[in-house]
Amino acid sequence: MTGQTITEQILSEKAGRDVTAGDYVEAAVDEMIAHDVTGPLAIDAFEDVTGEDGDLAAPDDVVFTLDHHAPADGVEAANNHNIVREFARAYGTHQYEINDGICHQVMIEEGFVEPGDLVIGADSHSTTYGGLGAFGTGVGSTDLGTAFATGELWFRVPETLRFEVHGDLPEGVYAKDLILTFIGDVGFAGATYMTAEYAGSAIQDLPIHQRLVLANMAIEMGGKAGIVEPDDRVATYLEEQAGLDVSIDPDLASDDDATYEAVHTYEGSDLAPQVSKPSNPENAVDVDEVVGTPVDQVFVGTCTNGRYEDIRTVADVLAGERVAPGTRLIVVPASKAVYEKCLETGVLETLVDAGATFQSAGCGACAGYHQGVLGDDDVCLATANRNFPGREGSMESRVYLGSPATAGATALYGEITDPREVETPRYDDHAVADAGVVR
Amino acid sequence: MTGQTITEQILSEKAGRDVTAGDYVEAAVDEMIAHDVTGPLAIDAFEDVTGEDGDLAAPDDVVFTLDHHAPADGVEAANNHNIVREFARAYGTHQYEINDGICHQVMIEEGFVEPGDLVIGADSHSTTYGGLGAFGTGVGSTDLGTAFATGELWFRVPETLRFEVHGDLPEGVYAKDLILTFIGDVGFAGATYMTAEYAGSAIQDLPIHQRLVLANMAIEMGGKAGIVEPDDRVATYLEEQAGLDVSIDPDLASDDDATYEAVHTYEGSDLAPQVSKPSNPENAVDVDEVVGTPVDQVFVGTCTNGRYEDIRTVADVLAGERVAPGTRLIVVPASKAVYEKCLETGVLETLVDAGATFQSAGCGACAGYHQGVLGDDDVCLATANRNFPGREGSMESRVYLGSPATAGATALYGEITDPREVETPRYDDHAVADAGVVR
Repeated sequence: MTGQTITEQILSEKAGRDVTAGDYVEAAVDEMIAHDVTGPLAIDAFEDVTGEDGDLAAPDDVVFTLDHHAPADGVEAANNHNIVREFARAYGTHQYEINDGICHQVMIEEGFVEPGDLVIGADSHSTTYGGLGAFGTGVGSTDLGTAFATGELWFRVPETLRFEVHGDLPEGVYAKDLILTFIGDVGFAGATYMTAEYAGSAIQDLPIHQRLVLANMAIEMGGKAGIVEPDDRVATYLEEQAGLDVSIDPDLASDDDATYEAVHTYEGSDLAPQVSKPSNPENAVDVDEVVGTPVDQVFVGTCTNGRYEDIRTVADVLAGERVAPGTRLIVVPASKAVYEKCLETGVLETLVDAGATFQSAGCGACAGYHQGVLGDDDVCLATANRNFPGREGSMESRVYLGSPATAGATALYGEITDPREVETPRYDDHAVADAGVVR
Repeated sequence: MTGQTITEQILSEKAGRDVTAGDYVEAAVDEMIAHDVTGPLAIDAFEDVTGEDGDLAAPDDVVFTLDHHAPADGVEAANNHNIVREFARAYGTHQYEINDGICHQVMIEEGFVEPGDLVIGADSHSTTYGGLGAFGTGVGSTDLGTAFATGELWFRVPETLRFEVHGDLPEGVYAKDLILTFIGDVGFAGATYMTAEYAGSAIQDLPIHQRLVLANMAIEMGGKAGIVEPDDRVATYLEEQAGLDVSIDPDLASDDDATYEAVHTYEGSDLAPQVSKPSNPENAVDVDEVVGTPVDQVFVGTCTNGRYEDIRTVADVLAGERVAPGTRLIVVPASKAVYEKCLETGVLETLVDAGATFQSAGCGACAGYHQGVLGDDDVCLATANRNFPGREGSMESRVYLGSPATAGATALYGEITDPREVETPRYDDHAVADAGVVR
């Protein structure tokens, strides 16, 4: 047979037979996740399928988080939390609490996900797990509830769209800038139902927390999944983050003769910090084009860029400085572990001293629920993944997407600012140092 | 003429003539406050009275805070914030931001209020200022908007209901326990349109942050105001908190022959920690009667008990311990200054290590808006001021009110716990030490 993509390899393994793009398969899933919005719907679907006394296929593979409306921002949210708590207790699944963090970050920190896994989640950003070399994908709550009962789900094996970045990335360019570049190039539907596979030396050089950004936002170009081939850096990361002892299978990689829908190739040195203009991630432009745009709010957080290294990047910019008058900086860590690391290292204090509003862990204002919702005239620069109309509040509000470095520089000046214009002592290397790996 | 209460003295001064309870007066107000819920309504009223180009009587006496829905928890909240911001900018009033804190705490910390002042606020807990020996009272947004234009407001001079506590308070009994005792004794309408005047050696021995609790909750028995005669401790407090140089007028006190509606007298040693059962503050009982009641959530915060000393009391109980499994502890500091002191002193870290969810400053879950809203079956013990049905969320939820010490003990065991049963190293004296005054 012809060579396989890593996507075809993983789905072959989980389907128990060799499969190729376009095949329909029934595959065994390794982990299933839902949160406080989708969890109650998945529970309903599960009970519809099995009746109230039905069995879960594998309670230990089911994880619930309370993240979108945490702490509860309304009675419905509070009731949904209690539905999830009761189900998890009754069926012996994993369940995390308010302030434990965003589903994807919790799954990774807690060591649920390993390279080669098939992970489904009732959340569109379940593509995130591809940063570890897993196949992660978002599914509907009904599909998830059914999978609770069977441990399996059907898939159409996706074609693969490959993005290669060669050479080194210039100063001020992070994974967020890469993914905005890719989405800008192929459009918000450019990878529909495909896997976005990220490769090349500049990608392999990225620390894991940045690879997760690439995988996370695959969905913003319609991707079924996003994936970076796993390497020893993944093993080191999982050992440090989750205490896992994982050995990487060198064969878990796309074959040289694998078939791609298309390959987009970039030279790292050609790339620049990107900002996606309102109101679509595909509206990515070089930061130059929007420099000087006044903002009312800067939001740092989400499953895309709410990790310690992201928040520290903002703190490095603002250390000893103040957020610009008239601008609000809202920081929401992606997990309790991130919060605690910000506290231990002084990053939290640095940001609070600078005037930031620091919240407990969760999804924050990302979906417009609470913790910094935008009004009609508000303009925000966010490290989030989406800026569709109304995503963070009013349909009239405007959201720009950028990297944490761009967010920090923008908070400092109160207008969109090129992060390369702001000198910081640890600007270019701290994220890697924190991840405990050498570039 | 016969002697005057402190209430009659202050209103005589502000009306420019000697007045007595029952008189109707037009009085000059010293400070006017509104927040993000009532501010836009007061602004509307002001514009109705003056037209859009009207003048404020005294912009420097007008203070806006953004505290009830901060950070914005919905589009309407965000738009209200912007209405307040724009008005304050246009008219040159004071305006505090999200995360600066609750109106009453901000007013006190920032030195707006002095003994003898007349303060009106479009918030029912504007009685709080009585802890400094000011006459503070809540007014409707329309009245406030009118006062913006005139600098004056009409009052019916209230009768006074006096609560005297003699001797010393036993261990575990705080101002919160006193006020719950008083409200339990006279009922939730027992001081309707009266001033609740607090006196006696046990009251005079209270540090200012605890006197504020007594004044704050006067409204929970219907009081127009609550007041403690100011003394040098107030001057010391205002100097330390706000850098004010205030000399206390020894005549600013009720005359010995003042007329009272009634006098309730207590011996401090007879008092015990109190908990108000659902769903009325007047349902106060000795904590013994409810010990063992399981709780889902403990909420520490609000303009009643969200000060540094309150949060530290909880931290003292939980230092090195964990919040009981299945119980959520949510802490919301009353102001940014409180947050920062919690951060500097390690109180924040102690509580986060214990499992608390620590939020930015504001009203938090007190009014059921966000940051820990209760679901149908949830039971909460709160350091808040009100537990009417639905106040913190679902109409089916149940809220118990207690002191921070009771809250800490309850969080530790996951059921209502007598604070006297929990030993802490700095149990009895830290609040006073922190306030910088000697008991």
